[in-house]
Amino acid sequence: MPDPSLLETFESPSAEPFLIEHVSEEFTSVCPKTGHPDFGDVVLRYQPGALCVELKSLKLYYQSFRNEGIFYEAVTNRMRDDLAEVTKPNWLQVITLWKGRGGIKSVIRAQAGDVPPEFAASLR
Amino acid sequence: MPDPSLLETFESPSAEPFLIEHVSEEFTSVCPKTGHPDFGDVVLRYQPGALCVELKSLKLYYQSFRNEGIFYEAVTNRMRDDLAEVTKPNWLQVITLWKGRGGIKSVIRAQAGDVPPEFAASLR
Amino acid sequence: MPDPSLLETFESPSAEPFLIEHVSEEFTSVCPKTGHPDFGDVVLRYQPGALCVELKSLKLYYQSFRNEGIFYEAVTNRMRDDLAEVTKPNWLQVITLWKGRGGIKSVIRAQAGDVPPEFAASLR
Amino acid sequence: MPDPSLLETFESPSAEPFLIEHVSEEFTSVCPKTGHPDFGDVVLRYQPGALCVELKSLKLYYQSFRNEGIFYEAVTNRMRDDLAEVTKPNWLQVITLWKGRGGIKSVIRAQAGDVPPEFAASLR
Amino acid sequence: MPDPSLLETFESPSAEPFLIEHVSEEFTSVCPKTGHPDFGDVVLRYQPGALCVELKSLKLYYQSFRNEGIFYEAVTNRMRDDLAEVTKPNWLQVITLWKGRGGIKSVIRAQAGDVPPEFAASLR
Amino acid sequence: MPDPSLLETFESPSAEPFLIEHVSEEFTSVCPKTGHPDFGDVVLRYQPGALCVELKSLKLYYQSFRNEGIFYEAVTNRMRDDLAEVTKPNWLQVITLWKGRGGIKSVIRAQAGDVPPEFAASLR
Amino acid sequence: MPDPSLLETFESPSAEPFLIEHVSEEFTSVCPKTGHPDFGDVVLRYQPGALCVELKSLKLYYQSFRNEGIFYEAVTNRMRDDLAEVTKPNWLQVITLWKGRGGIKSVIRAQAGDVPPEFAASLR
Amino acid sequence: MPDPSLLETFESPSAEPFLIEHVSEEFTSVCPKTGHPDFGDVVLRYQPGALCVELKSLKLYYQSFRNEGIFYEAVTNRMRDDLAEVTKPNWLQVITLWKGRGGIKSVIRAQAGDVPPEFAASLR
Amino acid sequence: MPDPSLLETFESPSAEPFLIEHVSEEFTSVCPKTGHPDFGDVVLRYQPGALCVELKSLKLYYQSFRNEGIFYEAVTNRMRDDLAEVTKPNWLQVITLWKGRGGIKSVIRAQAGDVPPEFAASLR
Amino acid sequence: MPDPSLLETFESPSAEPFLIEHVSEEFTSVCPKTGHPDFGDVVLRYQPGALCVELKSLKLYYQSFRNEGIFYEAVTNRMRDDLAEVTKPNWLQVITLWKGRGGIKSVIRAQAGDVPPEFAASLR
Repeated sequence: MPDPSLLETFESPSAEPFLIEHVSEEFTSVCPKTGHPDFGDVVLRYQPGALCVELKSLKLYYQSFRNEGIFYEAVTNRMRDDLAEVTKPNWLQVITLWKGRGGIKSVIRAQAGDVPPEFAASLR
Repeated sequence: MPDPSLLETFESPSAEPFLIEHVSEEFTSVCPKTGHPDFGDVVLRYQPGALCVELKSLKLYYQSFRNEGIFYEAVTNRMRDDLAEVTKPNWLQVITLWKGRGGIKSVIRAQAGDVPPEFAASLR
Repeated sequence: MPDPSLLETFESPSAEPFLIEHVSEEFTSVCPKTGHPDFGDVVLRYQPGALCVELKSLKLYYQSFRNEGIFYEAVTNRMRDDLAEVTKPNWLQVITLWKGRGGIKSVIRAQAGDVPPEFAASLR
Repeated sequence: MPDPSLLETFESPSAEPFLIEHVSEEFTSVCPKTGHPDFGDVVLRYQPGALCVELKSLKLYYQSFRNEGIFYEAVTNRMRDDLAEVTKPNWLQVITLWKGRGGIKSVIRAQAGDVPPEFAASLR
Repeated sequence: MPDPSLLETFESPSAEPFLIEHVSEEFTSVCPKTGHPDFGDVVLRYQPGALCVELKSLKLYYQSFRNEGIFYEAVTNRMRDDLAEVTKPNWLQVITLWKGRGGIKSVIRAQAGDVPPEFAASLR
Repeated sequence: MPDPSLLETFESPSAEPFLIEHVSEEFTSVCPKTGHPDFGDVVLRYQPGALCVELKSLKLYYQSFRNEGIFYEAVTNRMRDDLAEVTKPNWLQVITLWKGRGGIKSVIRAQAGDVPPEFAASLR
Repeated sequence: MPDPSLLETFESPSAEPFLIEHVSEEFTSVCPKTGHPDFGDVVLRYQPGALCVELKSLKLYYQSFRNEGIFYEAVTNRMRDDLAEVTKPNWLQVITLWKGRGGIKSVIRAQAGDVPPEFAASLR
Repeated sequence: MPDPSLLETFESPSAEPFLIEHVSEEFTSVCPKTGHPDFGDVVLRYQPGALCVELKSLKLYYQSFRNEGIFYEAVTNRMRDDLAEVTKPNWLQVITLWKGRGGIKSVIRAQAGDVPPEFAASLR
Repeated sequence: MPDPSLLETFESPSAEPFLIEHVSEEFTSVCPKTGHPDFGDVVLRYQPGALCVELKSLKLYYQSFRNEGIFYEAVTNRMRDDLAEVTKPNWLQVITLWKGRGGIKSVIRAQAGDVPPEFAASLR
Repeated sequence: MPDPSLLETFESPSAEPFLIEHVSEEFTSVCPKTGHPDFGDVVLRYQPGALCVELKSLKLYYQSFRNEGIFYEAVTNRMRDDLAEVTKPNWLQVITLWKGRGGIKSVIRAQAGDVPPEFAASLR
């Protein structure tokens, strides 16, 4: 069951604005309609406020979706909400990229706050 | 025959703005001039209003073009119109990428509404 | 001899703005200085006004350069002018990408009108 | 018109066996059925006997097919015959790789003599 | 319905052994279990005896599978049998590469006769 | 729990030798040491005897490893044994490709029987 | 131990604004939690003021992190601070791209000053 | 010795604004510190005023750096200055991409004038 | 200091012949001439006899080269000897792929025993 | 002027057979016909006898061709002869890959001795 209490944080090492991006290529949850597993990549990007998310705890949080029946759109919005609540970032974006179902691949993007203008040019 | 009545929707899981993208690499229709099949990819991107399009129904809607004689430009505009009418999105874009005919590959882009500014930087 | 009279048009299937892109990987003309053939790709992108260019006629128009001695820059500007005159587009861009001569590859870009702002984000 | 008299040779710089490979990405001839131009790559590989083919003359020989109506299979066998006759190689292979016609790409391979065993492992 | 009577041949242009390969990236048939369309690439490689298969007729033969309910394995063996019967080749290979179903991509290989030893090194 | 009773077969559609390859990019099991999930691709290649493995049942068989604690080497040998027992193939190969652990990616190859000589040249 | 005193500078060769980018694919430091080495790429981009950083000294500065226990985020902010202090640039950006830990790859971006508007279009 | 007198020009074929890009993958100069050769690519992009640079003369100009001891940054600024002086462009950009030295690859960007707004979207 | 006593083994899970391949993209040692770090990938392939090498111990063994001054050729032969002594394999191959030094990239291959014939076709 | 006296050797670190491969992407010489520079990659592979070639001396040897007018075929045979004489290898192969001239890219392969059978499967 998705469990945000697994998420741990540490204090940001700099008061200057900077961006953090973590890309996990090992995400799986379960389709609530068919019961078959879904596989995808998860991209988390954020500009920390006072707190950064600890990497191993992020991995365990992702693993807590493993046997959960949940749609693509709900996974993405849920992560955005959980991560934004725990880290209080200046900006945060979650992108999930799903392997195909029935010949269709999907990408869902959700974010909290505005893209920091000083980094917009270097984000694809 | 292209059949928008096949399209089903479900309620958007979040009131926060987010983007959905579905990429189908298995589209085929028929060239109305030569009778030969055309093959292409279809990219659908939208920012849902209250409704999301259900993935299996989208697949069946695409399959309904299989034996239809219809030009590239008309396929793309037809999809934009059908999908926008059914889902009432805040923004919607249809991109079709066609394999070559006579040494020429084509891409057609149609959209309804404006690209959401908070996501413009992360769309290629 | 480049022959714009080969170009045929058909009525645009939609009054909504949309973009058309045709990529030909089979273009050849002749270098007026050396007499050797030049090879390149031609990308045509436009937002139609009332008229679209017919695909087979476009192919024949490109073939009419086959034995013409003409420089890269002139090919590109000539195409821009011919295609803009025949289709009266809202916006039109011609990009030619030439295989190397003497270790140098060239790309020439010409356009008529302004990039439509509603599509700028999805054009690379 | 394909003209083998354009081919010039020079004496091989070594009596030790070695392999020569020339890859041209700029070949064009004409389809004898439709009159439309065909485009392809030509790979020539050979183990010289006493003679090597001069590179600029090879280019002119390829250019002599430019306005010739000739099928893929005939181009390839013709080149194999012409080049083998002029250079008397220990082994010679011609591979032509054609851009698609009607959604089908073609590769034709012809050779004279046996692949030299000491090089078989390093040829793909 | 798969229709081998569509296949036409022409006389081989050379008595010397050579290889022909045609790659179609636009094949579709229908899954007999689910009724959903299958999409794949078809690679045909052969060393002609006296006859070569005509390219446009090959395309029409492939198109005759469009609305047929037939498994991957049966498509491949059927093609091998039909093409071998019509062309009486010295060697013939059919490889079908299928886009994913349920997260699994498939490749089926069937052949008639032995790989010609003089070309084995240059086939991947 | 890995469950070979899930595997179903159907009769081979041809008495001629041919090869079947199924590539799954969605495999996951659990590391018995750390309890963390492992992710990998599974390639199954075989030359059927009288029986072929049914694709959907293969998918369910792979899914039965989802929550099993089992090493890379054991997964691969187990699959080879189960699949060879159920299908009695002339030749069968299982290749598992694992995403990295501690900066090391692994590939395990197991097989039953000898590579069929008539296909050795076209297998990479 | 990270040692900014290793950094040497030379006078910028031009008073016109220009951009310098150095990409090192050979960076390693040590994870302070596990003691295992971390590996990554470091991208440094800057618009020089009066001073440029000397390339060999930059390499030695990077090597001074080799046996330091330090987190990804701290490496990146430390480099931004050290390099900005030594070169007083008009704009400077440090991007670190880390190989995976536990299936998660990370990218950290830090900068000092604003992206020069005259170059924003040509930076990805 | 870098010799701008080698550069020749011809009159621009169009009064409409258009862009020219020449990419040379065959540039070499000498490192003034070590005496070892440096290798790189040179990208020249410009919007011509009244004059275009002639391609063969550009090649000879690049070759004039072959045995010159000169730093990356100086090469780039020198080219920008020489080419801008000879062609008086509306906008001009020189990008040099250098193969690695000591594990570090470098890219230097210099320009004269502002990116033409009507082409900014189609330049990467 | 390279320390083979770090290597641990476990019993092979199958008496049937199978192949194991571990690819590490995070290897570094030190050049004994210049004192600068070298970076490379290490590929280990073997057919186990009675013993397999434990993955985490392999990682620690590779890390034991981190501050050792040792040439490419010696690293590779040393690993082959250490790993063959500890695991007594039927066949074992070590391939090291080194990032460039002075514009030259190197690959060293060492092995013990003969490539198992039943797997030769599926090894690149 | 190509100068084999630049080549230095060191004693092979192992009496077991192993393979060494050095890939240089920074080779240039001069075309004796046109006076224009040629650019290429040089691949050297060998199985040492008692001696290995020292890497920095190899680089200087390659640089000694920089201003020499010499054909592709002669460069390759010359290197094979010089390197075989200095190192007395069990097997040695030189492959040169040349950037295009007049739209034609060339590859020349020369070797001394037979490919070692125990490594043939792992060489592409």
